[in-house]
Amino acid sequence: MPKISKKGIDMPESPIRKLVPYAEEAHKQGKTVYYLNIGQPDIKTPTVALNAIKEITLDVLAYSRSEGSETYRKKIAEYYGRNDISITHNDIIVTTGGSEALLFAFGSIMDQDDEIIIPEPFYANYNGFSTSSGINVVPVISKIENNFALPPIEEFEKLITSKTKAILICNPGNPTGYLYSKEEIKKLAAIVKKHDLFLIADEVYREFVYDGISHYSILEEPGLEEHAIVIDSVSKRYSMCGARIGYLVSKNKDVINTALKFAQARLSPPTLAQIASEAALDTPQSYFDDVAEEYVRRRNTLIEGLENIPGVKVAKPNGAFYCIAQLPVKNSDDFAKWLLESFDYENSTVMVAPAAGFYSTPNVGLNQIRIAYVLNEDSLKVAIKILEEALKVYKD
Amino acid sequence: MPKISKKGIDMPESPIRKLVPYAEEAHKQGKTVYYLNIGQPDIKTPTVALNAIKEITLDVLAYSRSEGSETYRKKIAEYYGRNDISITHNDIIVTTGGSEALLFAFGSIMDQDDEIIIPEPFYANYNGFSTSSGINVVPVISKIENNFALPPIEEFEKLITSKTKAILICNPGNPTGYLYSKEEIKKLAAIVKKHDLFLIADEVYREFVYDGISHYSILEEPGLEEHAIVIDSVSKRYSMCGARIGYLVSKNKDVINTALKFAQARLSPPTLAQIASEAALDTPQSYFDDVAEEYVRRRNTLIEGLENIPGVKVAKPNGAFYCIAQLPVKNSDDFAKWLLESFDYENSTVMVAPAAGFYSTPNVGLNQIRIAYVLNEDSLKVAIKILEEALKVYKD
Repeated sequence: MPKISKKGIDMPESPIRKLVPYAEEAHKQGKTVYYLNIGQPDIKTPTVALNAIKEITLDVLAYSRSEGSETYRKKIAEYYGRNDISITHNDIIVTTGGSEALLFAFGSIMDQDDEIIIPEPFYANYNGFSTSSGINVVPVISKIENNFALPPIEEFEKLITSKTKAILICNPGNPTGYLYSKEEIKKLAAIVKKHDLFLIADEVYREFVYDGISHYSILEEPGLEEHAIVIDSVSKRYSMCGARIGYLVSKNKDVINTALKFAQARLSPPTLAQIASEAALDTPQSYFDDVAEEYVRRRNTLIEGLENIPGVKVAKPNGAFYCIAQLPVKNSDDFAKWLLESFDYENSTVMVAPAAGFYSTPNVGLNQIRIAYVLNEDSLKVAIKILEEALKVYKD
Repeated sequence: MPKISKKGIDMPESPIRKLVPYAEEAHKQGKTVYYLNIGQPDIKTPTVALNAIKEITLDVLAYSRSEGSETYRKKIAEYYGRNDISITHNDIIVTTGGSEALLFAFGSIMDQDDEIIIPEPFYANYNGFSTSSGINVVPVISKIENNFALPPIEEFEKLITSKTKAILICNPGNPTGYLYSKEEIKKLAAIVKKHDLFLIADEVYREFVYDGISHYSILEEPGLEEHAIVIDSVSKRYSMCGARIGYLVSKNKDVINTALKFAQARLSPPTLAQIASEAALDTPQSYFDDVAEEYVRRRNTLIEGLENIPGVKVAKPNGAFYCIAQLPVKNSDDFAKWLLESFDYENSTVMVAPAAGFYSTPNVGLNQIRIAYVLNEDSLKVAIKILEEALKVYKD
């Protein structure tokens, strides 16, 4: 019998999805499950995007250009222009989700066994993309005590070897919700310039920033043009995760020309979703204002609720819609399973994402969970109450 | 300045798209260009698929399951059942085009520097997917004199090493149009079983078979269950290339479970396109009958026309909508550029795909081109006339 690859064996399971069978079991037991585990927002997709789909007039659903349709890329460039980022449509490759943009970036700048430094905890699928690209993640630990701020730059410096090709950040962060300051971005810019590295920034949550703090993109940093690669996506911005449209943005022509070869091999990004995504760029500002207000309310409800549970420590996020909470448990993986299998409060329970899967270093974050505040305030309050009651009775 | 990867440098340019700038120049010169270079059919997408999109009622364009929606996979399994292939929805992973199915298959069964044997000429993007997966293509030459039939099985046997993990075929073939016989599939089955290899069959053109010959899938071959991986796609079947929906099908549970990890990392295939693709499965048989008739007419017109041009040799295809023609020129790449840059017949010219890009062995197929018969008969006749006139005056 033929064997699967070592790479296939090494591919990590999704820490978010591996508890799904337990959730299905909880359903079968008749429990209501509050899902705090996955970043699928309940926010409505802008009407303008859905209408564009309902009104299609095409006869043949044809390939688009490999780099994405020109009209769409021009409108994306205008979007960035309105956000103080000066680029043209030639600096953009439209991809099948931010996921594919990451794969193209990794393939364009790294070979087998090359290294990428990533502050952890980080978006768990960075592990999967690294494994499938044959490269190695070198983590730098950021700490809940510091709200998951950028680790001291000396920690990065210590880890740079001849194999190091890039530093990757997620800003604002999934799973931390941390928004990097301009000063932190400047420190990263200095170190990548010093060591001739790329700086990849996953900025898919750039619109989700709160408390009057503004987002500083690596594309705004002067002198970083040849080093900066931005990963972006429509998934969360317009609550259209199922579109699978993202983009890779860089002013480095070698990067764009190389990524284009990867893009040509897979022919084109999805055509229907590009139509919806292009229309989504006309979403009125009021939509984003409403969404931001909604998330701030949810965040405040969540953080206040969690802080009131004895033994729970939580980092206050300024962006995205996640937070990491530290629980008075030994192993949050066991706790998360127990919540679904063996606990209910008034016949309800919650599903959370154990945080260990967001760390690359073994045995770190074992008592942490990631919470996505993608439920409305009332549901969040119930979910927090369930967590509180659960922690009263849970025994490690 | 940071450098791109060796992999990125090695990524091949698309042989189909590299002449696009010349075609754009021809347009600027005011020429009409007949496109015979790309497999984008002019056939209409089934109304049932487009209507499903126009009638969507969803409020949130959410992720689907990573393996594709269950209802869709169940309907795909029924489709295969109607085609004498007995599988369940659990044997299917829905992917972003056949392209992603190939990438998942390569990643699941091969590690860096592993080898895959492919009869050439082959679909050019197999080169790109191999480069991005870090594996090596080992070609076996098939010949225009034999209509590009399966090369003698001893030729495969000679090439098998400890690094060989799979044989890949495209059936019916792009770019050859060759349809493998049941006997040829049985020979391949025997060799992969003997050497514990996988047999990957790209069967995306399975519905495009002519002259009363039927398609024999590797999934129909008894005893091949653990070895067979089928790549499929809705792109050509329903003329919806822009949907970007394909699937990987295998009864080997290790393959499916491993590919699922790759699928989970990228979250989900496109949701809108899955809705269209699920509806497309209700396309009436009359649609396919009409399409097959149309392609047979086109093929006959094309082959007859080409055979009447002095010095042109052509393999008669029984499937797909491509053929390879050998021209009385030294270098078809130069000829294809010349057609666009320097030639016109009544102010028109044609764009063809030089065939060398479909070979992995250097300096083979230099006098061949691939023609996609995706134009209507009248246009095809004009295009053939242009080729004929061009060959009268072209000097190497």
